[in-house]
Amino acid sequence: MIELAANSYGKSAIRLVKLTRLADRHVLRDLTVGIALEGDFEAAYVEGDNANVVATDTMKNTVYAFARDRLDGPIERFGLALARHFVEFAQVEQATVRIREHGWAPVPTAGGPAPDAFLRTGDLTRVAVVTVSRADVTIEAGIEDLTVMKTTRSGFTGFPRDRYTTLPEVEDRLMATRLAAIWRYARHADAGGTSAEDGGAGLDFDAEFGGVRDVLLEVLASHDSPSVQSSIWQIGRAILAARPAVDEIRMTLPNLHHWLVDLSPFGLDNDREIFIPTTEPHGLIEGTVRRSDLKP
Amino acid sequence: MIELAANSYGKSAIRLVKLTRLADRHVLRDLTVGIALEGDFEAAYVEGDNANVVATDTMKNTVYAFARDRLDGPIERFGLALARHFVEFAQVEQATVRIREHGWAPVPTAGGPAPDAFLRTGDLTRVAVVTVSRADVTIEAGIEDLTVMKTTRSGFTGFPRDRYTTLPEVEDRLMATRLAAIWRYARHADAGGTSAEDGGAGLDFDAEFGGVRDVLLEVLASHDSPSVQSSIWQIGRAILAARPAVDEIRMTLPNLHHWLVDLSPFGLDNDREIFIPTTEPHGLIEGTVRRSDLKP
Amino acid sequence: MIELAANSYGKSAIRLVKLTRLADRHVLRDLTVGIALEGDFEAAYVEGDNANVVATDTMKNTVYAFARDRLDGPIERFGLALARHFVEFAQVEQATVRIREHGWAPVPTAGGPAPDAFLRTGDLTRVAVVTVSRADVTIEAGIEDLTVMKTTRSGFTGFPRDRYTTLPEVEDRLMATRLAAIWRYARHADAGGTSAEDGGAGLDFDAEFGGVRDVLLEVLASHDSPSVQSSIWQIGRAILAARPAVDEIRMTLPNLHHWLVDLSPFGLDNDREIFIPTTEPHGLIEGTVRRSDLKP
Amino acid sequence: MIELAANSYGKSAIRLVKLTRLADRHVLRDLTVGIALEGDFEAAYVEGDNANVVATDTMKNTVYAFARDRLDGPIERFGLALARHFVEFAQVEQATVRIREHGWAPVPTAGGPAPDAFLRTGDLTRVAVVTVSRADVTIEAGIEDLTVMKTTRSGFTGFPRDRYTTLPEVEDRLMATRLAAIWRYARHADAGGTSAEDGGAGLDFDAEFGGVRDVLLEVLASHDSPSVQSSIWQIGRAILAARPAVDEIRMTLPNLHHWLVDLSPFGLDNDREIFIPTTEPHGLIEGTVRRSDLKP
Repeated sequence: MIELAANSYGKSAIRLVKLTRLADRHVLRDLTVGIALEGDFEAAYVEGDNANVVATDTMKNTVYAFARDRLDGPIERFGLALARHFVEFAQVEQATVRIREHGWAPVPTAGGPAPDAFLRTGDLTRVAVVTVSRADVTIEAGIEDLTVMKTTRSGFTGFPRDRYTTLPEVEDRLMATRLAAIWRYARHADAGGTSAEDGGAGLDFDAEFGGVRDVLLEVLASHDSPSVQSSIWQIGRAILAARPAVDEIRMTLPNLHHWLVDLSPFGLDNDREIFIPTTEPHGLIEGTVRRSDLKP
Repeated sequence: MIELAANSYGKSAIRLVKLTRLADRHVLRDLTVGIALEGDFEAAYVEGDNANVVATDTMKNTVYAFARDRLDGPIERFGLALARHFVEFAQVEQATVRIREHGWAPVPTAGGPAPDAFLRTGDLTRVAVVTVSRADVTIEAGIEDLTVMKTTRSGFTGFPRDRYTTLPEVEDRLMATRLAAIWRYARHADAGGTSAEDGGAGLDFDAEFGGVRDVLLEVLASHDSPSVQSSIWQIGRAILAARPAVDEIRMTLPNLHHWLVDLSPFGLDNDREIFIPTTEPHGLIEGTVRRSDLKP
Repeated sequence: MIELAANSYGKSAIRLVKLTRLADRHVLRDLTVGIALEGDFEAAYVEGDNANVVATDTMKNTVYAFARDRLDGPIERFGLALARHFVEFAQVEQATVRIREHGWAPVPTAGGPAPDAFLRTGDLTRVAVVTVSRADVTIEAGIEDLTVMKTTRSGFTGFPRDRYTTLPEVEDRLMATRLAAIWRYARHADAGGTSAEDGGAGLDFDAEFGGVRDVLLEVLASHDSPSVQSSIWQIGRAILAARPAVDEIRMTLPNLHHWLVDLSPFGLDNDREIFIPTTEPHGLIEGTVRRSDLKP
Repeated sequence: MIELAANSYGKSAIRLVKLTRLADRHVLRDLTVGIALEGDFEAAYVEGDNANVVATDTMKNTVYAFARDRLDGPIERFGLALARHFVEFAQVEQATVRIREHGWAPVPTAGGPAPDAFLRTGDLTRVAVVTVSRADVTIEAGIEDLTVMKTTRSGFTGFPRDRYTTLPEVEDRLMATRLAAIWRYARHADAGGTSAEDGGAGLDFDAEFGGVRDVLLEVLASHDSPSVQSSIWQIGRAILAARPAVDEIRMTLPNLHHWLVDLSPFGLDNDREIFIPTTEPHGLIEGTVRRSDLKP
């Protein structure tokens, strides 16, 4: 017998710009939204019956319509509004909304930040993933596309050597990565009873994001790294220690190797000065750090 | 208390070309390999102790060394050899090897296929994912980057309409997708006792791949599609029906919309003739089809 | 004094699919079109006067409208129709239309090629560039995205050595490239008086394209290459010799290096068998081959 | 008769990181370098004689060797050093060096900018193109990858309407572009006799770059734009007016359209608030602004 197992569907890469004209300046938001639904959709697959299939075109329209009235705060709240809307369909058991927010900053001018001209900033992308089911709400926030380099206090020694090992031990290397991190907010985020279930009414998602980002950058800059693995742990632990609203953080760090160029054929030394940055191949290190008293 | 949860590490994007010089022609293989390990690596994260950390540079070296002697058959077997090698390290509990094989075909000439000149073909990418743990071997094969279009016998009707629905019902549309499929071979693939555990000694992975691909293309071309969801089911079911060695197949199909251009402002009709192909946004439909008598 | 010098404007990346429903099968065309105009547009730049500025949105509309009735032959003729249309505007001195045609092939099935299902082929992209001015018509055709490899009969020796030279002489290497070629058809392409000026009424652009492509592949496969430079010359010369309608061909060949892996640390030799394909950095070799009796 | 016409060759995508360890902080430079040579290379093409062909691998080595001692100032000077080196080969008539510098900023921490940790900034890429021939030196500098948006004071009206025109006149639109600009420094850049020929010994390339960038951003933010064409003129004219060292500037501006979403089917208005940003198709506007008293 043959059966349908896990399935989902939705709309990806919904691009959206919202412009709000304040009295003294404009506010520009630039998002990429994805919607995915799980639920009672087996008939569409197995019987060709679309009666339960909310069209992905409808999802797109809903995102634009909601953007008009509900996109006035952090992307986590916009994601919550959308996910709750879709889970109201009887056939939907779980709705996941992924949002990437692309950064724009006012153009700097002699007279200060321009009120109506912006430049796209590429330092990082802010991410939110909101999952709403009948029983549960999960709010995750994250950082993608953050390319960073430590130029000292990073090494890699003490690793096992076998027939295929040629890498020398190195006490002081460049460590570069394009960091992706995503963290989950606690279901009851503070003593006052704020909870993700109620939309995290009391949680200031912008402040939380900024707080996590700041700890991440602070530890990234200041820690001694004996390996990318250790960096993940040190950063993750510090974030959990500093931000009680965060229960768990997952990080994915490619190790973007910088190879020292051998200049000796040209009669030159190269005391860790000239490097070839590469992307292929790259190490890929992943780890999750969490509070150990969480129920799974 | 803060703890390390799920973690893994490895090397990605290892690029490899192998050239075999037969008497009458050359054989060209072009692979991208990724290795990921799970196991007893907590000390690296938490204590900065790399004693257990097989260097990702060593993984890369191993891939090249193994390519010389072990890359003489399908990528599934090369993946098996690599995964088994890495799981021999005491600290490794599971090794996953992902391989993408890029197609090259002999250059066609007046005298027939050239023996020593090749052109890269872009119709699809063949994929294998081999996972070896102490207790188990899983061999998956797949297709990526297969862009296909059905120009009739595809529609989408009968879906629910709400306030945000504007999509018209359409009986006859273009359906285009960039298909990704990955299927898992049965642990005991045939009556003769061939099993994935023994490296699938009796399984002809090239023949299996070709068989699945042919069924996929055949059904893709011939079926009537009331939705992308239904296409996934029809294709998956046919593959499981035709290929006893396959236990389960997962498919991911973006719906690459083709919008009919409104030519009426120019005094022209457009009877499903001129379309704008788009990639943003796109539907994204996923489904797994499996034998229902499998133990999970 | 400050003045406006060279300028042009237009619309790029106009995506277009045309489907023609024949009695027994469908015909699928998939193009990306770009339009660029030069002419009397200085007032738009200098005075903010748009009276002469054919909107790029209008260009896009025109492409779709023309696709309905004029896209029934090779892309060179479609480009000619478009370029001639735009040069009819009094302010337009020159219109350039660039078209890339993306390949699709019928899905192969047990019953033969499917009449209404297609798969995207990635072997190469066919290109046309048509430039029409008041006085002249230039029709160019080309190939892009053709990735090829010669696995023997390619070397590189006899080059000068200086302080910075470490590359060894190599008699037998892999030569891989992603070839781009564009050739210009003669203004009077054959003795019967066919000319590009009259739209090349007598020139069979599909046959010409196929002819050039075949010579290119034939020479690519069969020639001995002492350098990429020489390959360009040998291929170009052969095309001009074989195809009287072609006056000139320009080729751009990145040299996509394949580095032999040093397996000696693992006790293995590597007799030109295992290579690392790379894209960064790459050589980039360009050359134009033409008939020497052409007026410039 | 068939002959070789224009030709060049070189090395592209040479990636390079230089780290300088100052007493109190590190300085990080990240470049992508390309070299192209023209000269007496016909024998390589036509006769397969490589005696004149400086290997592109040697070019790469030279870049790394020069980076050690000569990369201590702006990329224009590094490019000059490289171009002059290559033009010293008797067979080289012209050497062109293109450099892109990728931005990194110190990681911000509570204690100020980190001395040894950096994050990649993506606001723009600084570019230099240095061309040295026997008789001449040309130094160009530029900006790429600068994505900007004006959220008001941009319109497009008064354009001609024909059968294919549907675009409405719009007084107030979003104007977004990914700006590329490249400007040429005057051969005698100031009254004191500084000239590009002597390496621009007196020209402060960093200050010039900053000056041009600041004017560009200032005008971008402050001007009223009746068209992208006019924006090019206004920006270019202001740069030439403010920066006497600049003789000519070329700009390429894609018009990245933002389409207003029609929310009326959902009973909502949309007063220029919710937009769909797009990249396909896009307008492409180019223009060169120069001093009119220049000799060609």
